[in-house]
Amino acid sequence: MSEEFITIQSIGRKGLLRELSEFTGLTNEGTVKGIGDDSAALKEKDGSITLLSSDTFVEGVDFDPTYTPFTHFGYKIVSASVSDVYAMNGIPISILVNLALPNRLSVQMVKDLYIGIDNACKKYNVELVGGDLTGNHNNAVISVSVYGKASEDTITYRNGANIGDAICVTGDVGAAIAGLRILMREKKFWEQHGDDAIQPDLEDYKFVVQRQLMPEARKDLIEALSNQKIIPTSMIDLTQGVINEVTEICNASGLGAYLYQAALPVAIETRHVADEMEEDVDKYALFGGEDLELLFTLSEKQVEQFIEHFKDFAVIGRMTPKDEGLNMQTAEGDVLSFDDLS
Amino acid sequence: MSEEFITIQSIGRKGLLRELSEFTGLTNEGTVKGIGDDSAALKEKDGSITLLSSDTFVEGVDFDPTYTPFTHFGYKIVSASVSDVYAMNGIPISILVNLALPNRLSVQMVKDLYIGIDNACKKYNVELVGGDLTGNHNNAVISVSVYGKASEDTITYRNGANIGDAICVTGDVGAAIAGLRILMREKKFWEQHGDDAIQPDLEDYKFVVQRQLMPEARKDLIEALSNQKIIPTSMIDLTQGVINEVTEICNASGLGAYLYQAALPVAIETRHVADEMEEDVDKYALFGGEDLELLFTLSEKQVEQFIEHFKDFAVIGRMTPKDEGLNMQTAEGDVLSFDDLS
Repeated sequence: MSEEFITIQSIGRKGLLRELSEFTGLTNEGTVKGIGDDSAALKEKDGSITLLSSDTFVEGVDFDPTYTPFTHFGYKIVSASVSDVYAMNGIPISILVNLALPNRLSVQMVKDLYIGIDNACKKYNVELVGGDLTGNHNNAVISVSVYGKASEDTITYRNGANIGDAICVTGDVGAAIAGLRILMREKKFWEQHGDDAIQPDLEDYKFVVQRQLMPEARKDLIEALSNQKIIPTSMIDLTQGVINEVTEICNASGLGAYLYQAALPVAIETRHVADEMEEDVDKYALFGGEDLELLFTLSEKQVEQFIEHFKDFAVIGRMTPKDEGLNMQTAEGDVLSFDDLS
Repeated sequence: MSEEFITIQSIGRKGLLRELSEFTGLTNEGTVKGIGDDSAALKEKDGSITLLSSDTFVEGVDFDPTYTPFTHFGYKIVSASVSDVYAMNGIPISILVNLALPNRLSVQMVKDLYIGIDNACKKYNVELVGGDLTGNHNNAVISVSVYGKASEDTITYRNGANIGDAICVTGDVGAAIAGLRILMREKKFWEQHGDDAIQPDLEDYKFVVQRQLMPEARKDLIEALSNQKIIPTSMIDLTQGVINEVTEICNASGLGAYLYQAALPVAIETRHVADEMEEDVDKYALFGGEDLELLFTLSEKQVEQFIEHFKDFAVIGRMTPKDEGLNMQTAEGDVLSFDDLS
């Protein structure tokens, strides 16, 4: 027992995870990856790999019911969960959903949540096979566990990137945080002006709001990779922002990275929001989370082959030796250093 | 959309589960059992069965930190989770733990929780392979997902009981609720008298308190069944009490049951608590939850064979035709009917 009261806050999420990393119970021989990738990977006797992952979503922390329709939220939590399996180049098969719900919720609200879950399950070809239902005093807490499969030949971890590999990202980045900024602004306006206020028109912000409330996991990338028989050297999904995910790949692969700011794919709608909010769109792009895009590394040759068949990705940088660290060339030609590598 | 606001409370947990039962996304061909058993069962290409289950534990609903040491609680949540796999006659392999924690918890409290989780993992030969960590405003909410395996030949569901089968239960029943009653009494005493009060002596209640705070899952039964090559006709774990679990077996198997009250295995320590609290020990035995014992059905011949090799179970009744319902012969010779069958 330590004698000092050390708060969770003071050591942070990553610090706490480090403190807990020694407690893993028995170590199974079949475990290829335990804690420290998007999903845990267990090798089966038939040579296949089982993927397991779970996420918790907390009302008031991870979602705000004042601007989150339950159907959208049901869809989003499934997207976020299967994304952890896609990030391993795997196929999600089934999910379990655990609900801890306060009594103030109506049956219809819970049904709406499940309509969203059901829609997303159909989209991603997964089955809801079980879960748990319990009460909570204050807020809704929802956990989703996902079970998937990968093959030993194609499973992709965070740690396989090589020097010179292209750092690629699907779609565009920063849209989810732009959507969140708009929703938070409208909420504040509503809180200040009450029901008498003119209803805010979100039509102009549809693209970014949709990306925040109902993001899509990139099943299409995994299918395209499979069709082209291309196996990325590493992969991760974008939940905490480009800089965070590139840092994870660097640390896992024992490398550094050099990013080109001008190459970051940012939607025009995202830029408009940043302008309107008088904020820096590059911050959205580099540090905004929840985009659920996939960030992956390919060799130069793989890029040439893949780009013929799949268009919706951008090369945003290169892997470098570890001692060069994580750097980014700005649009103005300066070089920014990020000192996050461990 | 229904126009009426229907509360979750008004339709209850089972009512809500019924409402949600249509939303299962895609239905996979490989799913042998989805929602409605202790674990979901998925048939793999190699013929093995994958078992998946998850449970949520809510501070203030499922546990009270004023009398629950975190190390014990960590142990208990693993026991409860692997019990769902044992109840399918399966072997648990790995778990994921999701934490949603308020800032007031110290790092040491979370480490204590993980020490308990780690101990239980070693006891049950399972590995902690991942999970998620997020904040919560008010209370701790913990979800545990378990992944296990069963074989197609020996997996045991709730629905296989036959007329005439013996209803068996491991260990003893009602001890966990007896422990809870003592802990709640001591908490109330402490709240009324404050720190100045003489510390309550729980030494006399060690057996029942241990059963509440740190129950064991019945791995030993599953091992004995395997050694004797005995496959129960049905099985369930005791989380909501004997009557509830027998009802589940009856409904799943399309049968009734006849129980002998005098045969219910109740520990002397549990009886002492009931006497002291001036409560009915049979209520503890029939309706007390969280014992984590296994309730299973065997043919007459299986009972004769099994009892030679495994002593720690009791025959508490027989399966009957459905139209006879669920009845219990009391110690006085009367017959009580339970009208819970669906």
